[in-house]
Amino acid sequence: MTFSQLLNESIRSKGNPVLVGLDPRWDSLPTECRRHTEGLTLSAQVVAEAFERFCSEIIDIVAPWVPAVKPQSAFFEQYGPEGMIALRNVIRYAKQKGLLVIFDGKRNDIGSTAEAYAAGLLGTESAWGADALTVSPYLGDDSIDPFVKTAVARGAGVYVLVKTSNPGGKMLQDLVIDGKPVYCRVAEYVERLARQTSGSVGAVVGATWAEQLAALRQVMPSAPLLVPGYGAQGGTAKDVAKAFHSDGSGVLINNSRGIIFAHEKEPFKSQFGNAHWRDAVLAATKQMIEELRAVQEPSGTVHA
Amino acid sequence: MTFSQLLNESIRSKGNPVLVGLDPRWDSLPTECRRHTEGLTLSAQVVAEAFERFCSEIIDIVAPWVPAVKPQSAFFEQYGPEGMIALRNVIRYAKQKGLLVIFDGKRNDIGSTAEAYAAGLLGTESAWGADALTVSPYLGDDSIDPFVKTAVARGAGVYVLVKTSNPGGKMLQDLVIDGKPVYCRVAEYVERLARQTSGSVGAVVGATWAEQLAALRQVMPSAPLLVPGYGAQGGTAKDVAKAFHSDGSGVLINNSRGIIFAHEKEPFKSQFGNAHWRDAVLAATKQMIEELRAVQEPSGTVHA
Repeated sequence: MTFSQLLNESIRSKGNPVLVGLDPRWDSLPTECRRHTEGLTLSAQVVAEAFERFCSEIIDIVAPWVPAVKPQSAFFEQYGPEGMIALRNVIRYAKQKGLLVIFDGKRNDIGSTAEAYAAGLLGTESAWGADALTVSPYLGDDSIDPFVKTAVARGAGVYVLVKTSNPGGKMLQDLVIDGKPVYCRVAEYVERLARQTSGSVGAVVGATWAEQLAALRQVMPSAPLLVPGYGAQGGTAKDVAKAFHSDGSGVLINNSRGIIFAHEKEPFKSQFGNAHWRDAVLAATKQMIEELRAVQEPSGTVHA
Repeated sequence: MTFSQLLNESIRSKGNPVLVGLDPRWDSLPTECRRHTEGLTLSAQVVAEAFERFCSEIIDIVAPWVPAVKPQSAFFEQYGPEGMIALRNVIRYAKQKGLLVIFDGKRNDIGSTAEAYAAGLLGTESAWGADALTVSPYLGDDSIDPFVKTAVARGAGVYVLVKTSNPGGKMLQDLVIDGKPVYCRVAEYVERLARQTSGSVGAVVGATWAEQLAALRQVMPSAPLLVPGYGAQGGTAKDVAKAFHSDGSGVLINNSRGIIFAHEKEPFKSQFGNAHWRDAVLAATKQMIEELRAVQEPSGTVHA
């Protein structure tokens, strides 16, 4: 089974494209998740274990509802090897619960170094066992090839950064050459790879650029899209509507803080608060699913 | 002390700019380093422990001679959290031995995620404790800022990818806008940061592009350069000569396989072979130091 088939089957079975970002931060953890560390020195191990417990609880809550989760490597790496043990365990637990796992590492390198990343991070034989990985394109095509090769061989996926959700992404991505911005060239390159690999290669395109997202879906009809920037960064359901294929497939919409730390933000903060953070997570997940459904036709097609 | 001062003091005290890349690969390890694993299942832990022993031995050999080492995260990450434990221990050991440590991770992300990478990877308070980190610029200036901020606060360094050593780097880096290639724009941006931070921000420029390397040193007089591609990838001492400041400072020239697996390549293969791999490492290190000295004036200035 190709990554694209696996992805679309997961989206279909859950009936939505919500990708829950696992970005654990110590200061945002619900009080309850920090309580058992009272009196302990906040060592890397103590924090990492709290992250693992918290992420596992999030997985328990969202697994019946959404197709995929996206652990962000940085928040685990911050706590050294202890954090990486937590990350590995979180990936395993998510897969046990039937979720697709996108490893958000934005890795890249050349030649055999890229091969080492690919072998390590993707597929069933790897030490981490993710289903897909985010990669950065600055090093060019020969740096992406080893990731693609490994992904295809293992039924895994590769998401190449095309148009990122942050304002500063413009610095390189929006430079225009012969009337075409850099991100559009990267998109054309991704589309070629997506065709050659039956959708094993996809693109990261921020929800914060609604117009470009719609245009980029036209440039990349074959590529699965990973769309960050929903919620906390300002992207809305309307902004992402044009990323979907007519049957609702081919795209994952990411929300991290807006779901996992829903207890910190209104309306969930007043409604549930810190003590009922699990209910806040569930409510935020269901709300996002509903918001996305509202921009899709009852038949599953999308409002244009 | 700023990163630049620390770097130049290390270069001055060792009298050369050699940066030994720690890229452990199981198949290239000297037979002796694999022998103790005979009969064991090649688990991630067994491989990771062999990597740690091997890299520690390399550090013992090169520490009296060179200013810095560059562990490549990918080769450790490949073996999961066990590999990351080895990486952390290798960094610690290198620092104990007085070496500067450049963490080659080519990380990047946005906002608080970049902050998490920066906090985790750089400086004395971090879980990893590297002195500098390589980062990729595709996400733009606001993705680099958190790395710079953390680096400056901790006397650490950030090396931004500018012109990478691989052929495919041309795909994005050599696109020309208004007569200026993308890599040149990134170089100008790095130079601005280098000036603002007294050399805490530097650039990665491949030795495989001698002409561009010389031109980029002119564009970035204030930025420390990290020059990969020497040796195995084809870069020579003559190619990198113009990267040096007149006093020999401001640059690290990286060699990975050519030093750590010197026993695999002529002339060291015949001269020392697998059994005397330590002697091969030392001979290759000394040869590189000599090659670089030969392109510098006796006064420490560089042949133009």
